[in-house]
Amino acid sequence: MTAPLHEAHPAGPGRALPDTQQGMRRRNLARVMHTVGAAGPLSRAAVASRIGLTRAAVSTLVDELVRSGLLEELGPERPGRVGRGRPGFALAVSGRGPAGIGAEVGVDHLAVCAVDLRGEVRARIVRHGTNRDRSPEPVIAELAGLVRRVVAEADGEGLWPAGLAVAVPGLVARDARTVLRAPNLGWHDTDLAALLPAELPLTVDNEANFGALAELWLGEDTPRDFLHVSAEIGIGAGVVVDGRLLRGTRGFAGELGHVPVRPDGPECACGGRGCLEQYAGEEAVLRAAGLQLGEDRVGLLAGRAADGDEDVRRALRDAGEALGVALTGAVNLLDPESVVLGGALAGLAPWLLPSLRSELARRTAGPACPVSVSRLGSEGPLLGAAHWVVRGVLDDPAGVAELRAQG
Amino acid sequence: MTAPLHEAHPAGPGRALPDTQQGMRRRNLARVMHTVGAAGPLSRAAVASRIGLTRAAVSTLVDELVRSGLLEELGPERPGRVGRGRPGFALAVSGRGPAGIGAEVGVDHLAVCAVDLRGEVRARIVRHGTNRDRSPEPVIAELAGLVRRVVAEADGEGLWPAGLAVAVPGLVARDARTVLRAPNLGWHDTDLAALLPAELPLTVDNEANFGALAELWLGEDTPRDFLHVSAEIGIGAGVVVDGRLLRGTRGFAGELGHVPVRPDGPECACGGRGCLEQYAGEEAVLRAAGLQLGEDRVGLLAGRAADGDEDVRRALRDAGEALGVALTGAVNLLDPESVVLGGALAGLAPWLLPSLRSELARRTAGPACPVSVSRLGSEGPLLGAAHWVVRGVLDDPAGVAELRAQG
Repeated sequence: MTAPLHEAHPAGPGRALPDTQQGMRRRNLARVMHTVGAAGPLSRAAVASRIGLTRAAVSTLVDELVRSGLLEELGPERPGRVGRGRPGFALAVSGRGPAGIGAEVGVDHLAVCAVDLRGEVRARIVRHGTNRDRSPEPVIAELAGLVRRVVAEADGEGLWPAGLAVAVPGLVARDARTVLRAPNLGWHDTDLAALLPAELPLTVDNEANFGALAELWLGEDTPRDFLHVSAEIGIGAGVVVDGRLLRGTRGFAGELGHVPVRPDGPECACGGRGCLEQYAGEEAVLRAAGLQLGEDRVGLLAGRAADGDEDVRRALRDAGEALGVALTGAVNLLDPESVVLGGALAGLAPWLLPSLRSELARRTAGPACPVSVSRLGSEGPLLGAAHWVVRGVLDDPAGVAELRAQG
Repeated sequence: MTAPLHEAHPAGPGRALPDTQQGMRRRNLARVMHTVGAAGPLSRAAVASRIGLTRAAVSTLVDELVRSGLLEELGPERPGRVGRGRPGFALAVSGRGPAGIGAEVGVDHLAVCAVDLRGEVRARIVRHGTNRDRSPEPVIAELAGLVRRVVAEADGEGLWPAGLAVAVPGLVARDARTVLRAPNLGWHDTDLAALLPAELPLTVDNEANFGALAELWLGEDTPRDFLHVSAEIGIGAGVVVDGRLLRGTRGFAGELGHVPVRPDGPECACGGRGCLEQYAGEEAVLRAAGLQLGEDRVGLLAGRAADGDEDVRRALRDAGEALGVALTGAVNLLDPESVVLGGALAGLAPWLLPSLRSELARRTAGPACPVSVSRLGSEGPLLGAAHWVVRGVLDDPAGVAELRAQG
């Protein structure tokens, strides 16, 4: 009854391993990778004592990981660090070898990056310019060009792509390749796998999901139960429970933007009335502040609010209040340890947070759920996508070695 | 990366088993129990082929389970059923041996039952009468008396208690023994373990949680992702995700009754305003219908509604509408496969469901989440508690054998 090491996405790289000798060996390879990744450099003896296996068993596993290029041996350890026996070589996760390629299709930008097994961003390209109402083919063709450039750049540093993960601002089918609807792009039922080069294992997911996973994996002191709220034009949430992302039956979980705030409020495109998006979505806030919808909406709002524009500040205060009402419901249902504002909301936090927090507090008898701001900001989804691939390698190192052998 | 077999309650009987040879053996014992439980009677060969182990490995496991009294061998199989080799004995889960003792402290009743490993209720006692504003000591002393009677009755049938699980209408600490607050009983910070006989392993949990688990384990075609909504005086929900109950950081998840429906609505004891309980809680419905709060409130409302009382019908219609608004938010956040009305709500379903369903449908663009009524009705929490203990035995048969050896 061990907990799954990896977020269990049906099409993700961390597939379930059977409870056999072979499965146990693969899980133990993963334990070695994670242990060295989290606490390395470490000697073989230190790894053995941390994961509770014999030194001989660990050495066999380590040899296999070194052969596959996933771990590397540094120079001999200083004598003082080894208690007894012959001096060991310290082990570290390789900075060459497999890399995760993350990509993001934003409403106003495209981005691609490569992250190595140590978690370092080794290559990164961003292309600004709207994708609103462009058809998927040219956008994805452009994205594929950026992917090729990042892969070439990573190749120059001795890295090879273990997979590609793409964050999109929309609902993705459980096949992890089809964008069912992305209203702010104007896309629906778009199979990205058919538009992208076939050589890389592909995972497509909602940007709010990848943002939440980035917070889980890269945030400072992130708890294992939290709600990650982000926005580009819509408002989405990633619900993380016990270190796993909650996806829902159809993969549609986290649609915080369509939680009713005022049941008789304005009509929403979702079919409902008075949804959160009608009060705290970017369009609603711009409208309430008397501004036009254009590019860099967050920058515009943040700039005006910082300059003391009372209309913008009032609009953001009201948006924070509506967020507070919707989050009260979410907190009552899910009892998370904290709420994290990420994505575009992070940039507006100074003006949203006061009313959001006071609304949550006045609706809660005990201590209110703490609300913090992600330090990843708008980088979250892109980093989450790249780390998705990296975690897949760490969670099943034998799998990526097989992939490399086939490739 | 095997999924946990058992609901992972920190103090529950299905504790995590390490990923070692010993842990693997214990997990395989559990697989044999579950396989025979779900599909038995089965021959050893049939068990082996279903769980993918060799017949020799399965025989060793089966022998251990027969020795512990958890499985029993029926007579020799009819020759026609065995393809080759010597005729086998069909295996079945034992109807003697360990039993789960479930108990419920309701606002208006106490109940205790014993359920055997086959899932049959073998003894059951209910005591009607209000517990409202009685102090915990006499109530729990009375409950302990009922437990002793049920255990004695079960003993007469060759069953011994593997544990006791108690459902309460309130919030329970993560220690699974302390009732933090049960406003409708007037209890707070009550350690039930100190008031109950120490000889039985104890689990205390919220009645909505046990009700949801009963639905998961005993309901017909229950999906693995659903929201179970129940009510006694408060309104609670059990959120089941991928076959596991979501508990939240403090164990407070599922507080659907305090999801805001109208942010400026009447004040609620929780500190909020316009919470669902202010519109669909029993007290609110009785008040709206012009009735007094007394015992058997559901019976009173259902009786009047069936008799065509327009005030009661209108009050229930409005409550259904408020439930629809709150559930729209929950469905958008969690994307469950279905919503199940259980507990007291099951008895009022004919008058709640039409407005609830139409509210959910008109607030949803695609097909609305289906809403059904639990067939377990108000028995859910009691059965869920007893089956909690039974599942603990099935999920770690070696653990219960150790318990028996110590006892």
